Amino acid sequence: MGEVRLLIAYQGTRYRGWQIQPDEPTVQGVLEEACFKMTGHKTRVTAASRTDSGVHAAEQVACLVNESRHVPAALRDGLNALLPDDVVVLEAREAPAGFDPRRHAMGKHYRYIIHNSRVRPVFERNYRWHVKNPLDVAAMNRAAGVLVGEHDFSAFRGSNCTAKTTVRMLDGLAWRSEPPALVLDVWGRGFLKQMVRNIVGTCVEIGRGRWPAGKMADILQSRRREEAGLTAPAQGLCLLKVCFDEEEYRRAVGAPDQGD
Amino acid sequence: MGEVRLLIAYQGTRYRGWQIQPDEPTVQGVLEEACFKMTGHKTRVTAASRTDSGVHAAEQVACLVNESRHVPAALRDGLNALLPDDVVVLEAREAPAGFDPRRHAMGKHYRYIIHNSRVRPVFERNYRWHVKNPLDVAAMNRAAGVLVGEHDFSAFRGSNCTAKTTVRMLDGLAWRSEPPALVLDVWGRGFLKQMVRNIVGTCVEIGRGRWPAGKMADILQSRRREEAGLTAPAQGLCLLKVCFDEEEYRRAVGAPDQGD
Repeated sequence: MGEVRLLIAYQGTRYRGWQIQPDEPTVQGVLEEACFKMTGHKTRVTAASRTDSGVHAAEQVACLVNESRHVPAALRDGLNALLPDDVVVLEAREAPAGFDPRRHAMGKHYRYIIHNSRVRPVFERNYRWHVKNPLDVAAMNRAAGVLVGEHDFSAFRGSNCTAKTTVRMLDGLAWRSEPPALVLDVWGRGFLKQMVRNIVGTCVEIGRGRWPAGKMADILQSRRREEAGLTAPAQGLCLLKVCFDEEEYRRAVGAPDQGD
Repeated sequence: MGEVRLLIAYQGTRYRGWQIQPDEPTVQGVLEEACFKMTGHKTRVTAASRTDSGVHAAEQVACLVNESRHVPAALRDGLNALLPDDVVVLEAREAPAGFDPRRHAMGKHYRYIIHNSRVRPVFERNYRWHVKNPLDVAAMNRAAGVLVGEHDFSAFRGSNCTAKTTVRMLDGLAWRSEPPALVLDVWGRGFLKQMVRNIVGTCVEIGRGRWPAGKMADILQSRRREEAGLTAPAQGLCLLKVCFDEEEYRRAVGAPDQGD
């Protein structure tokens, strides 16, 4: 008996996000169900990030209190045999007592991928947003740079966001071109609901030339959701990595290949 | 009116292969149906490679005789709007009269990917074969090397293969390790049905230590299908590229990043 730290990957497509909800498929729901089937114990599985409906995770970090006699590796293999094919436990290991992935996370790395081409993607169609109009990545990068630092992100908060405070710290934000993909890497300590996707939607309006790059600062300062662009679709977003160590997080920020 | 050369990508998962069959979903079938919807003409679409049931293609080359007034780019966009989301026309351009992708192909590049890990893949689960046992890639490579050159590949022919001759030329065959993936690149002028997958199945028996690498030569010489390993699953196989130029093909062989 003791805390076990899980590293989890999932394709978010058919889930209503991480957080368990009655009568809806959720990642937390299928994990807790698999735990119950395997151990006979009702077990709470908590995660560092409560990803939204349709959002993927490459390395979500979660925790459960192991009330079974299984060692972590046996727990991993047993859960993987019971979980659906779009969720997998990559790693399970003992964690210090009281480990709380949500509270102890120092920073998170998200990635958003746009498929910027006349022609839609086939193999990666569930992991990219297809935008046909050519996008100006330099303008998108100038606009995104304005958001780095501590700001009130009210203009980019989802309509159903219930956070009490709207000030967040973004440590890094950078678009790069890998034709036909445009990739946004974002590092932050915490995010408002749909914040990354609202930033992406706004960057795309700038990238296609509908708005000048300078408008990003106005939108941020307005603190009005109506000023920003549409919410980019969930399928392009993936939680890449959660850092629990300040040093590790500082090294990761701005190094886009970390967490791949 | 004239020949149009198409570059096509598809996820083979839900198709019974390229070649049209009554009452079965096929890639040729959905392409010819989309052509008919778009142009009102019954149009034959022929391909360089008749990929098997479940096999993918990143750059299949096909040809049709355009009896409509659409220019190739309009044909591409129109077909893409009508095709299902697992098939896409990447490119359409005019081809010389009499262009026959099957006869004029100089060589083909196939890739097979094994996910070699205790833990199954999530994001790429439709594009890899999951093998849990650790595999010895050096042994697999020694075994594969024996097959390069012109040989009678009877031992690796599928049970339902109807080819009249069983002698084929393999120009390159190499495994490499990209943990957790093992990647096989194969270049050849032509292949027997299920030949690549039977070679992969045999290499895996060697890689997990059930057979010595030297057994590959015995299997090849036996010309008996019963001597070789099981057929590896179709989902790991992808037709990467078809070359129509001798020079281009010779440069591509052994250069694994070509055609990515």
